Amino acid sequence: MAIIEPASYAAGHWVGPGGDARLVHGPVDGAAIARTGGAPLDFGAMIEFAVTRGGPALRAMTFHERAKMLKALAAYIAERKETLYALNPLTGATRKDGAVDIEGGIITMSVIASKGRREMPDGNVYVDGALEQISRKGSFLAQHIAVPLRGVAVHINAFNFPVWGMLEKLAPTLLAGMPAIVKPATQTCYLTEACFRLIVESGLVPEGAVQLVIGGTGDLLDRLAAQDVVSFTGSAETALHLRGKPNLLRHSVRFMAEQDSLNASVLGPDVTPDSPEFDLFVKQAATEITVKAGQKCTAIRRIIVPQALLDPVAQALSARLRQTTIGDPSGDVRMGCLASEAQRGDVAARVAQLRQEARVVLDETGFEMPNGPGFFAPTLLACDDPDAGQAVHSVEAFGPVSTLMPYRDLPHAAALANRGGGSLVTSLVTQDPQVARAMVLESAAWHGRLYIIDRDSMAEATGHGAPLPHLVHGGPGRAGGGEELGGVRGVLHYMQRTAVQGGPDVLTAVTGQWVPGARQIEGPAHPFQRTYHELQIGETITTDSRIVTLADIEHFARFTGDTFYAHMDEEAARANPFFPGRVAHGYLLLSFAAGLFVQPDPGPVLANTGLNALSFQKPVSPGDSLHVRLTVKRKTGRTETYGEVAWNATLFNQDAEQVAEYELLTMVAYDRA
Amino acid sequence: MAIIEPASYAAGHWVGPGGDARLVHGPVDGAAIARTGGAPLDFGAMIEFAVTRGGPALRAMTFHERAKMLKALAAYIAERKETLYALNPLTGATRKDGAVDIEGGIITMSVIASKGRREMPDGNVYVDGALEQISRKGSFLAQHIAVPLRGVAVHINAFNFPVWGMLEKLAPTLLAGMPAIVKPATQTCYLTEACFRLIVESGLVPEGAVQLVIGGTGDLLDRLAAQDVVSFTGSAETALHLRGKPNLLRHSVRFMAEQDSLNASVLGPDVTPDSPEFDLFVKQAATEITVKAGQKCTAIRRIIVPQALLDPVAQALSARLRQTTIGDPSGDVRMGCLASEAQRGDVAARVAQLRQEARVVLDETGFEMPNGPGFFAPTLLACDDPDAGQAVHSVEAFGPVSTLMPYRDLPHAAALANRGGGSLVTSLVTQDPQVARAMVLESAAWHGRLYIIDRDSMAEATGHGAPLPHLVHGGPGRAGGGEELGGVRGVLHYMQRTAVQGGPDVLTAVTGQWVPGARQIEGPAHPFQRTYHELQIGETITTDSRIVTLADIEHFARFTGDTFYAHMDEEAARANPFFPGRVAHGYLLLSFAAGLFVQPDPGPVLANTGLNALSFQKPVSPGDSLHVRLTVKRKTGRTETYGEVAWNATLFNQDAEQVAEYELLTMVAYDRA
Repeated sequence: MAIIEPASYAAGHWVGPGGDARLVHGPVDGAAIARTGGAPLDFGAMIEFAVTRGGPALRAMTFHERAKMLKALAAYIAERKETLYALNPLTGATRKDGAVDIEGGIITMSVIASKGRREMPDGNVYVDGALEQISRKGSFLAQHIAVPLRGVAVHINAFNFPVWGMLEKLAPTLLAGMPAIVKPATQTCYLTEACFRLIVESGLVPEGAVQLVIGGTGDLLDRLAAQDVVSFTGSAETALHLRGKPNLLRHSVRFMAEQDSLNASVLGPDVTPDSPEFDLFVKQAATEITVKAGQKCTAIRRIIVPQALLDPVAQALSARLRQTTIGDPSGDVRMGCLASEAQRGDVAARVAQLRQEARVVLDETGFEMPNGPGFFAPTLLACDDPDAGQAVHSVEAFGPVSTLMPYRDLPHAAALANRGGGSLVTSLVTQDPQVARAMVLESAAWHGRLYIIDRDSMAEATGHGAPLPHLVHGGPGRAGGGEELGGVRGVLHYMQRTAVQGGPDVLTAVTGQWVPGARQIEGPAHPFQRTYHELQIGETITTDSRIVTLADIEHFARFTGDTFYAHMDEEAARANPFFPGRVAHGYLLLSFAAGLFVQPDPGPVLANTGLNALSFQKPVSPGDSLHVRLTVKRKTGRTETYGEVAWNATLFNQDAEQVAEYELLTMVAYDRA
Repeated sequence: MAIIEPASYAAGHWVGPGGDARLVHGPVDGAAIARTGGAPLDFGAMIEFAVTRGGPALRAMTFHERAKMLKALAAYIAERKETLYALNPLTGATRKDGAVDIEGGIITMSVIASKGRREMPDGNVYVDGALEQISRKGSFLAQHIAVPLRGVAVHINAFNFPVWGMLEKLAPTLLAGMPAIVKPATQTCYLTEACFRLIVESGLVPEGAVQLVIGGTGDLLDRLAAQDVVSFTGSAETALHLRGKPNLLRHSVRFMAEQDSLNASVLGPDVTPDSPEFDLFVKQAATEITVKAGQKCTAIRRIIVPQALLDPVAQALSARLRQTTIGDPSGDVRMGCLASEAQRGDVAARVAQLRQEARVVLDETGFEMPNGPGFFAPTLLACDDPDAGQAVHSVEAFGPVSTLMPYRDLPHAAALANRGGGSLVTSLVTQDPQVARAMVLESAAWHGRLYIIDRDSMAEATGHGAPLPHLVHGGPGRAGGGEELGGVRGVLHYMQRTAVQGGPDVLTAVTGQWVPGARQIEGPAHPFQRTYHELQIGETITTDSRIVTLADIEHFARFTGDTFYAHMDEEAARANPFFPGRVAHGYLLLSFAAGLFVQPDPGPVLANTGLNALSFQKPVSPGDSLHVRLTVKRKTGRTETYGEVAWNATLFNQDAEQVAEYELLTMVAYDRA
């Protein structure tokens, strides 16, 4: 195979390896794979390009436009994924390992895109939380919003997931509207570069939105300031070195770190050796030790089991691990190899440290494997006194290595899990929800994710080691204190949250959502006869009124069967703290309201799909009258042919007092049929 | 007046000033006010006391119990506020200045308590966001939660708000369930100590939950680790020094900083000199310059006005400022003095720096004021070329000092505001919502709060300089990158967010909220006859079913007036993409559902107060049948006599397909009448 020459992509130009390029050697047979870096990059120009070209181009798009771009990009990469799988075995990874990286990255980008469409507006301002009522009469209000940061996000990725690592950071960054400079780890940068090249070649992403650094970062981080972000994945040592850079501290630059940590898996005290949970636990541990040859930041490093089950677990897990076939990752094997010879040396050194405190349960003895520089056999240790242990809770062998340890009771198990000083994920296998609750209360503060399974949930469980785009990925302390993904939460890391205070018209203009008290617009026709595109934010109809009679209430009660005493029995109703006497049913009011505002003829308003935040604010007594004010509050595109229009519906009585308020959801055609 | 001897409160003991105590001199007449510090404190023991006594005691309480504690504490302090006002003039502050500090702090604590009652559960686990559907069949789900951090929060406060500064940090910390060590600035620590003493004497707060450090912090910060938090308010220089401490970086200790910043106020391009907005702008600027003698982290340092209005604003503002009466803050004056002689020296030095770039519009000439060491006259500068200016955008004179500067157009005004490099707040005076929107889009990324007012909102506006407990307080870059308050947002800074994955029963046990798919409990009676305390999470009734006939639909249409074609016209309904033909009204289904599940007799269930997240999931055609499953989802105490029970209501058709789902809100008596 020809030596690969991955190029940087800087300020719109590909920059191939230069004179001082570094040779990367493969872990399978030691042959040279790639020439990397060595050509000087102008980091100042790259930042300038991102900020003056990429940022404005992204900010000119709405959240939905960016989400659609990401969806298309995920599909574009998916169609060409075999070009990535072709390079994957060079990293030491099997095809199955590669799927976690390649399909995992594509799916992550796609899910983040879907979340953006579903949970963010089709505009430029994200509305964070509810309107804050900071004045009595409502002439001055506040709303938290989020807007994209104006700088550049620098993504520093680890060697173990060259594709997922890039895509899981790019998706929320681009969705936020912020440009990125991607710096992959050198050892596997050729695979990142192949995927990055697809992104550029797709033509889907504006110029300046993404750039790539192959090789060193020079003074890149020293040039960052208040509007920039660093998002780092890798070792604790490197993170510590980077986060202490004076200019990052001086400018309060956001520094998110996701560090390898001493993740644990706990076998519940309720589990017996003959139960499905026992097998599940052992199988999961074996999987986490062998997938990616244990090179996952989420892999199980500590296996915490009831004292009495230490030996049974040791035996069952050893037996399972012994079946692991190891070899050339392009072949039909269970496990490939570590990413490099250096990595193998590092893992061996860490195992030696761990062996100061733990005995060997399983090592390379009896395994058949090639002689290539990256191969390392599954290794299982046991630490019989984990309270005394230090290294077992702090030294991470980033390979197929894990340490068993016994616990006395559940608080002890939680205390041991917490001894890792902060982890990305800890799993618990239990069939008892109360064990789960106790463990969560004792240990959630130490772990970014708690993964709890039993025989019933195992069929659909997503895997201890799998970060999901829906869920936060990160953990406190040793795990870096950062947080990625988690749907929109991960997008907000690339945005500034700002509290905007102003009158209703100001907040309506800023958020694109009608705020009570803001200007109401009278449309040229009934709003049900107006298309999605024609309807304006603030467009309002105020209906005629109708009297709610006692006969209506009694009729409704008989018709629906809702003969609750507050509607039927004057004396009993009066004894209720909420009612002055007999009152109309809340659902009668809703139904009459619809009768008042609905326009019956076919038109662009297709369906009422639901409603939000209905509150009944004042009882309606027989003889009261009712009218409705219906105002276009928010518009959100949904499909190719229609979008969602949310209306503020407010019901008033004859004294113009509010009796109920809700957000009505409808689907409205973009155009007339 | 006798010299005050404020004491530290460490591990349950008061520790008065020691041999090396430092004398604090007052800014009004230079007399010695207090002896502070000088007695060694055992910071290791203080942390241990917080973590082993305060933390467990707080975590044993629910969010509502902690909220009630804070409410009672705010009331306790309010009743004794005159003991604080008695000390207030010693700091250089007038009574009006003191109100911002003292009443402001009490109100902040009270509002945070109310938010806790309203927006957090009466339990130990905060539920963050929606349930995440990560499996197809729903047997494995995820929910983000937050739990209190297990360490201690160290609060480092600034000299300018000795009471508010403490209370605004304590309220969210204690509500989260985390103990705190409070370190006030030495110059005004005697006032903080007087308030702290009230907290301890109230007996409302568990031992170990709050401790106080008067004097130096020694090795306190060097002892912090992964579960601790530092929350700092003060100068950028001090923040930079502290946040770079190696152990804080190594353990990813959360470090929140709120730094003085170069806040701006912008006069909109639409404002004319004869408009109410012009007067409003001038009055606001004068207030922000003189309140607390300009010693507010939110004060206006840069006054940005249209080029043509520079002179009119300079004249009007000077005229207004010249009316400022200055003197002993215990007397009837508009402005007191700076907090210390050192502060006065610092402000004078900064003004000298600013004068390199700005001319003097108003200085001490003509002001009458005492000779005391803290007095400094209102000072107004003007920088005619703010694009060339450096110091005017970066040097903060922390006193009654502000700099006028002209802009050409709105983007220029935003660019100048952003030149501060990140601020806590920027205000805009405009009557044009589109000017507001443009300014927000251009500048929100640089400011933690944007305050926008006009003639209509001014009557209820809360003030440029006033951080509100409802709104985030903090800003990017120069402002420290931190975020405090903002209701529950500020509480979450003292908690760990964790993604919990598990089956429905596990998530129900963990969150205390029933999750679809979890075990359903059959109660001994109809749930409407069960009290709040009797009802269990998961308690369910499944109703009988009824057929929805075409006659029902037509009858409902006539009765309510909702004759939308989808219910009335088979052909037109079929042409609609959502419907197979004529369908039942959504509100008919809701009404029938209530008829099916309501038990009519008086009982503990008092009222249906609203509903949330109603979605119509499948059309119901004439002849379909309908039944309801009603399950207790969540219970939240509300008043002395009743609480809110939220129910999951799910409607099914004859094929057991879901046709609608919503959360029904009811108020239920704790006990039988």
